[in-house]
Amino acid sequence: MNADELAIRNLVARWHSASEAGDVEAVLRLMDEDVVFLVAGHPPMKGRSAFEQGLRGLLALNRIETTSEIQEIEVSGHLAYCWSVLNVRVIPKVGGRPVVRSGSAVSILRKQTDGSWLVVRDVNLLAVVT
Amino acid sequence: MNADELAIRNLVARWHSASEAGDVEAVLRLMDEDVVFLVAGHPPMKGRSAFEQGLRGLLALNRIETTSEIQEIEVSGHLAYCWSVLNVRVIPKVGGRPVVRSGSAVSILRKQTDGSWLVVRDVNLLAVVT
Repeated sequence: MNADELAIRNLVARWHSASEAGDVEAVLRLMDEDVVFLVAGHPPMKGRSAFEQGLRGLLALNRIETTSEIQEIEVSGHLAYCWSVLNVRVIPKVGGRPVVRSGSAVSILRKQTDGSWLVVRDVNLLAVVT
Repeated sequence: MNADELAIRNLVARWHSASEAGDVEAVLRLMDEDVVFLVAGHPPMKGRSAFEQGLRGLLALNRIETTSEIQEIEVSGHLAYCWSVLNVRVIPKVGGRPVVRSGSAVSILRKQTDGSWLVVRDVNLLAVVT
């Protein structure tokens, strides 16, 4: 595994641990300011601040548990993609049934001038598990 | 627009015109043998022959009309991604209401040794329009 792939694996791991810890600032540091999130049935969510608003709203009422299995990472120059299979449990703080979503997500990442990687596009196919 | 981006735009245009014409062979020539198609709620569809089987089944009973608006293409070395917004109408040959799906799709493409590009991963967020 080369340094770029290792950096991207670490980013994915930090994304999940920060989400579970409710550490919004730490999640935001892993994405570009002009990030775009794509999910089915909704218009594109554009920009880190739109994501922040959504995540803070979610975490006000819930906590998150995630598992992630990276299927593949491919890097070429300053561009990479990472395909993961995710399982996300959104657990209401007041109690009640968790909502579980699972499925594939593909992130596009761009290498920064300091050699670090940031998520620039995220395509999320997660569907509710009933 | 550089040569790689132009080649990818031409690939996308050919994909749609070949699908509309029912020319399965022409669509298949635009993807890698080990292509993976990801959609919500289904396991990954792996390989050109799995795609071929699905497309031939669809085209046996329907014709397809598509429109596509490319949102962006980014190329780095031998890797590229293309984000499009698609509208796909599946029209039963025997008559009846078309099924219309629309939404974003993100394709990952890989440059071949001859300089051409092939789709290697395709993430499809299209949802039925009611």
